[in-house]
Amino acid sequence: MVQSAGTRFARFSALSLLFAFALGHLYPTAQSAASLLKTQVFPADDSHEIRAVLTEQQAAWNRGDIPIFLQGYWNSPELTFAGSDGIVRGYDGLLERYRKAYPDKARMGELEFAGLEIRSLGADSALVIGHWHLTRAVGDIGGVFSLVFHRFPVGWRIIHDHTSAQKLTP
Amino acid sequence: MVQSAGTRFARFSALSLLFAFALGHLYPTAQSAASLLKTQVFPADDSHEIRAVLTEQQAAWNRGDIPIFLQGYWNSPELTFAGSDGIVRGYDGLLERYRKAYPDKARMGELEFAGLEIRSLGADSALVIGHWHLTRAVGDIGGVFSLVFHRFPVGWRIIHDHTSAQKLTP
Repeated sequence: MVQSAGTRFARFSALSLLFAFALGHLYPTAQSAASLLKTQVFPADDSHEIRAVLTEQQAAWNRGDIPIFLQGYWNSPELTFAGSDGIVRGYDGLLERYRKAYPDKARMGELEFAGLEIRSLGADSALVIGHWHLTRAVGDIGGVFSLVFHRFPVGWRIIHDHTSAQKLTP
Repeated sequence: MVQSAGTRFARFSALSLLFAFALGHLYPTAQSAASLLKTQVFPADDSHEIRAVLTEQQAAWNRGDIPIFLQGYWNSPELTFAGSDGIVRGYDGLLERYRKAYPDKARMGELEFAGLEIRSLGADSALVIGHWHLTRAVGDIGGVFSLVFHRFPVGWRIIHDHTSAQKLTP
């Protein structure tokens, strides 16, 4: 069946209106999708920079250099570290915690990160979750961590760390 | 001493140039301050909404209602929960974890949150750290948690939870 141009135009207009109407109603959903997208899509450069911070931390740890390892954290009294000892506050507090818990290279062992997942939380914030493992003659330990990174003019730094130890199968 | 208009103008221009020059050099610092500010200043409404989610969770827990407690979380397979068991994924996975770990009201006990700190991570993201405590006839437990909240069209929901148990002094 052949339609007249007039009918086609009427149908087109009706469809346009319907589309505009649907778009209006879909807007909250579209906004929701965009909002979700922000937590998932993350510029590759930012991911690389965050991974580089963690790689430098790992290298420093494996040289037994806790002060350089700490440079991945925000140098501020507002830095927080949560774990089985509760909440440790400030860069100096965290340095002291690491020095007490890992007084020598034997206790520090060889650090390895695995299964890193980086999620954007906005333009200047990111969540990194992953597994940590210390291979040590005195006994391996490991577990999971959640790091909140913030982008500073000097680069991405950890502003909050929550680390758990996990039972390891021997 | 009275200055000629010409001298005043020259001084004004020199000061303007100096100011513009200083501003250019101060810009990274100003940017840094603004960047820091974003993590600290948070609209009171958002804080109230996030606190309301946690208050509703607490009330649901204390009625023994895990499904309603779960409504504070993002209903998504991408929801993550980190702890001493590693990483649990998805809303259904978390529901199962809670049902296994807390099979009855006696094991659930009375939940209390304390020392909540809410930090903005951008317009639609926030970090909440705090202490949790379960008062139970079978023995109290408690610890610290780090929650990453995201603002959805339906409101603020937890997209990542890292919870640790802590040794409690008897």
